[in-house]
Amino acid sequence: MTTFRVKFLPYDTDIEIEDGDTVIRAALEAGVHVNASCGGEGVCGKCRVLIEGGTVEGGISEKLSRQDQESGYRLACRSIVKSDLVVRIPVESAIDSGVLKLQAAPRRTAHIRDMNFEELKEKGLFVAPVEKKYVELPAPTAQDNLPDITRLISHLQLEHDEHRLEVTLAMIRKLPQVIREDDFRVTATLVRPVRDVGKTRIINVQPGDTTRQSYAIAMDIGTTTIYGQVIDLISGEVLAEHGEFNGQISYGEDVISRIVYAEKPGGLVKLSEVVIKTVNKILAKIIKRSGVDPENISTITLAGNTTMTQLMLAVDPRHIRRAPYVPAATLFPPIKAADLGMDLGEHVAALVYPAVSSYVGGDIVAGVMGSGIYRTDELTLYLDVGTNAEIVIGNKDWLACAACSAGPAFEGGGLKFGMRAAKGAIEDFSIDPVTLEPMLITIGNVRPKGICGSGLIIMVATMFEMGIINNLGKFDRDLDTPRIREDNGVYEYVLAWKDDTQIDRDVTLTEIDIENLIRAKGAIYSGCMTLLTEVGMSIEDIEKIILAGGFGSYVDLEKAMTIGLLPEMDTAKITFIGNGSLMGAKMSSLTNRIRRDVVEVTKKMTNFELSDTPSYMDNYVAALFLPHTDMNKFPKLKARMDARKGLKQ
Amino acid sequence: MTTFRVKFLPYDTDIEIEDGDTVIRAALEAGVHVNASCGGEGVCGKCRVLIEGGTVEGGISEKLSRQDQESGYRLACRSIVKSDLVVRIPVESAIDSGVLKLQAAPRRTAHIRDMNFEELKEKGLFVAPVEKKYVELPAPTAQDNLPDITRLISHLQLEHDEHRLEVTLAMIRKLPQVIREDDFRVTATLVRPVRDVGKTRIINVQPGDTTRQSYAIAMDIGTTTIYGQVIDLISGEVLAEHGEFNGQISYGEDVISRIVYAEKPGGLVKLSEVVIKTVNKILAKIIKRSGVDPENISTITLAGNTTMTQLMLAVDPRHIRRAPYVPAATLFPPIKAADLGMDLGEHVAALVYPAVSSYVGGDIVAGVMGSGIYRTDELTLYLDVGTNAEIVIGNKDWLACAACSAGPAFEGGGLKFGMRAAKGAIEDFSIDPVTLEPMLITIGNVRPKGICGSGLIIMVATMFEMGIINNLGKFDRDLDTPRIREDNGVYEYVLAWKDDTQIDRDVTLTEIDIENLIRAKGAIYSGCMTLLTEVGMSIEDIEKIILAGGFGSYVDLEKAMTIGLLPEMDTAKITFIGNGSLMGAKMSSLTNRIRRDVVEVTKKMTNFELSDTPSYMDNYVAALFLPHTDMNKFPKLKARMDARKGLKQ
Repeated sequence: MTTFRVKFLPYDTDIEIEDGDTVIRAALEAGVHVNASCGGEGVCGKCRVLIEGGTVEGGISEKLSRQDQESGYRLACRSIVKSDLVVRIPVESAIDSGVLKLQAAPRRTAHIRDMNFEELKEKGLFVAPVEKKYVELPAPTAQDNLPDITRLISHLQLEHDEHRLEVTLAMIRKLPQVIREDDFRVTATLVRPVRDVGKTRIINVQPGDTTRQSYAIAMDIGTTTIYGQVIDLISGEVLAEHGEFNGQISYGEDVISRIVYAEKPGGLVKLSEVVIKTVNKILAKIIKRSGVDPENISTITLAGNTTMTQLMLAVDPRHIRRAPYVPAATLFPPIKAADLGMDLGEHVAALVYPAVSSYVGGDIVAGVMGSGIYRTDELTLYLDVGTNAEIVIGNKDWLACAACSAGPAFEGGGLKFGMRAAKGAIEDFSIDPVTLEPMLITIGNVRPKGICGSGLIIMVATMFEMGIINNLGKFDRDLDTPRIREDNGVYEYVLAWKDDTQIDRDVTLTEIDIENLIRAKGAIYSGCMTLLTEVGMSIEDIEKIILAGGFGSYVDLEKAMTIGLLPEMDTAKITFIGNGSLMGAKMSSLTNRIRRDVVEVTKKMTNFELSDTPSYMDNYVAALFLPHTDMNKFPKLKARMDARKGLKQ
Repeated sequence: MTTFRVKFLPYDTDIEIEDGDTVIRAALEAGVHVNASCGGEGVCGKCRVLIEGGTVEGGISEKLSRQDQESGYRLACRSIVKSDLVVRIPVESAIDSGVLKLQAAPRRTAHIRDMNFEELKEKGLFVAPVEKKYVELPAPTAQDNLPDITRLISHLQLEHDEHRLEVTLAMIRKLPQVIREDDFRVTATLVRPVRDVGKTRIINVQPGDTTRQSYAIAMDIGTTTIYGQVIDLISGEVLAEHGEFNGQISYGEDVISRIVYAEKPGGLVKLSEVVIKTVNKILAKIIKRSGVDPENISTITLAGNTTMTQLMLAVDPRHIRRAPYVPAATLFPPIKAADLGMDLGEHVAALVYPAVSSYVGGDIVAGVMGSGIYRTDELTLYLDVGTNAEIVIGNKDWLACAACSAGPAFEGGGLKFGMRAAKGAIEDFSIDPVTLEPMLITIGNVRPKGICGSGLIIMVATMFEMGIINNLGKFDRDLDTPRIREDNGVYEYVLAWKDDTQIDRDVTLTEIDIENLIRAKGAIYSGCMTLLTEVGMSIEDIEKIILAGGFGSYVDLEKAMTIGLLPEMDTAKITFIGNGSLMGAKMSSLTNRIRRDVVEVTKKMTNFELSDTPSYMDNYVAALFLPHTDMNKFPKLKARMDARKGLKQ
């Protein structure tokens, strides 16, 4: 990936960004404010910048006069960086640069990559889960008329030293034809036992030599989105990946409403069918894209939260939502994928990730396996934030986990103009400390439609740090701007006037929205605090944070610390894992060692029911402030706020 | 069973028979001839006998004059023995009593019974295959909210010392409801592994205590008939049993024509569906009759020949009928009965008996297990005669087996008036050596319709021994009776004139019928000889014969020796096992030990392909005589025939 360095004048701030990014995104990342209210569509014309050095593509608009254009002015939101740049922010926006500079540090993110075979081998984690073996069998004669299967097994023993083999009926059904199709030359697909004591199962036979075509499917069954991958078991590469909204969304947004639906007559079967339909949609796409022959796919590994897992397997989840929150099972036997209605060969085994409890599911366990916390020395906080937030704290010696209900704010739910992180959602934001004019960037660079979770955090953090809202999340009533107003008794900030939006209404951020966010982040923060207290540790002991989930990939770390969602720490110690569930599913597809370890890890993960932990409520109440009732827990933020106060005075 | 002794005058012969038998059957068993041609329906009126002592029920007919009736004359075929009797055969039938007395020894039969638990235990063969365990679980609380399955497993460990447990998805699906239905009191059904190293599988859970209700199904999948049993796993008793014709009969009488049908497009699936339909019909009947709750049935054990097994499992059998006769598999993994389309609970495991080769199938292996040859010291010949005859020779040290095609004669097929052993089939026969008038008994005591296999053997043996046919199976052309005649160039004997039959035609036995029988018995005898030669033994080494199958239960042993189907030996050393296949299936249902042993036994059974064994054809040609080209192999018969010659001269 080519990167370029963009320098912003007059601030003398510079930042490295990737080829294809726009100037306005570079500015935001560098903490440089440029007025902008159309989300990046180029229609408001406010984000005029002067390109003083280097090359950009686009950025010319009727909003710029011919003279401006010739002088090198461009719209920052439509200018794509094509070289190192020097960009001057026009004086009309460049007020109070000192304050701006205090605003935020550039973001830093580090992704944990999935491991490949080499790394798995280096770490002693590689044990092949599936192997294909080619044999050239002698044709039967009157003197040697062994059954087809016995002929195959005896030669696998003889030529490949394979013992303790067992077979499946599906494979026996294929054998008579397959064994004769290429003159008794066949490839057998062997699935290894998770434990050494088990048997190797011959799940498939194919004519000729197909040993180089060996694939697996990894899948994350999310409440909202389901992702699947086709994995090459020879190279370890992901050949295709695709996500689709879980078809169950029509039956309820969150796990609780899904459970309620499942309790209706026929509801469980319906929800099971619907999720399998989505799985099949994804399978069709990724198999097609990868170009692999489905016959060469041997396993599908699935990870999902406890409710999603039970719904997919048509196991009644009703007791998950009722105290004392009892799942039917957290460990599942291997199942035939075809028996679950999946459009995969009769031979394909479905392996379902084990869970810990009703609210710490297989998706989290997969993340623990994928991120490798269970093997690290460092005390690590693993956080997967969605409607429910799951927290794991620990290292190779011990693991504690808990779940808390954050509500839908992080997914854009429950807000006046909330929406999922989709096209038109404001995902990045800055505000001019003097004019209080906003700078907006939307997903897809189109006119804004609403606010997504990561955008909400940035807005609230930015406004809080600039004093536009106080530590209770209330707007400063004394500020002189038409953007802050009272509507039906609720104070709100107008992010975009209706002409700049897609919805022909002003898009606003309300105090109720902010309250929802504070509750959500308070739940998570107090969850972490409570878990730490229960294991006799404090926030300072955390050496590393791993953020998982779609939310975790987009959240601005500094802003998340500013609102008190995350404890304040060096961002270098925070990594994004992305879809931890999918990563774990992939790694289990690649090596049996992870599948073996996971059973032990799951047993080791001590679950805490926060609702039954007395300190949780105290911690929660203390966290219902920005960032927290105890500002001393956020020393860097305190320093910045104190500095800002000094500047203002 | 009450038995009575019937004495026949003037011969001074007596026999013990069972309550409910007729006088004519008693006469036949005692070797006493009474003319009779209507099969036992009472319409020919020829079987007049005088009851001189004791009581009979029935036997009065308009065919008897009032005076006869008052004198104590009865029709033998309609008189049921109700006490010890003295019966005089009227002088008109009592010609040449000396010859009659030479005719045949009374039959002796001894059945091997299925073993019960006590015997299994005595012989060290008992290992419970299924056990139910009842637990009273504590209800979950906030402090103890383990998953339902974990709660169950941990208490099975705690209270019943059960370890190494594995579960099924079907069982997990049931668990949340079942566990709460009777307030956390549940019974778990545990299926033991065949080998000690395996895991115990929890296949079912039920509310409350159902430990005393534990059942299994045993089934014999025959080419012609399918038999099923419901077995009580607590008492070892058979609670219900039923047989039905295999629905596949409409698609071909024998395995070869079934295979031919299976090769047609859709044929395999069709035949699989059809046999499962018959299985389900039987299941419905036996489950209903037994009164057991299907939920309490845990396993179904199935035994059938190799073709029937592959057809039932929808495994293409085409290579079974083509040289070099290769089956797809002879050992099958456990399968879910529901996956095979059987109307049994999702939890029920189907266990399929292993086979040895294409023509020595699971039915024979089941017979070997059921009869216990594999545990005996005595060198035993196990013979299952049907369209195909399977032969096993051996003892606890070694076992050799082979199959030969006998043709359908033993099942009444290919004869001019051949029929299955059903109502109206002549099953017993005697002939007056002077008048050449017959004595017929039919199944169901109705007018004759045709000849079944066991009847055929008796006719041919009787006529041969009396010199009516020679050792090539040809009628003595010099005999003076209208019953022997030439029809379209073929000699035949009229068994019943058309007025005495159900079919309005004379029922006859032709020389072609006899030739078919000689070929069939020749194939089996030479099969035995060849197998013995191959293992370096001779017929004299055989210490015991076990006859299996429907045919084996009805055949007259002395007559079978007379025609050379069986080697001549003390009938006390010959036992009937009945349905050996069903017996083996039952025993595997009762004890895992048999299921474990069967794998070793199957490996130990050395299969000989007779068609590839050079001596087979020589032995066959030598056996195409009555009883054999070498009369010295049948010394007792020789002595009787010599005595007869002496009498005649």
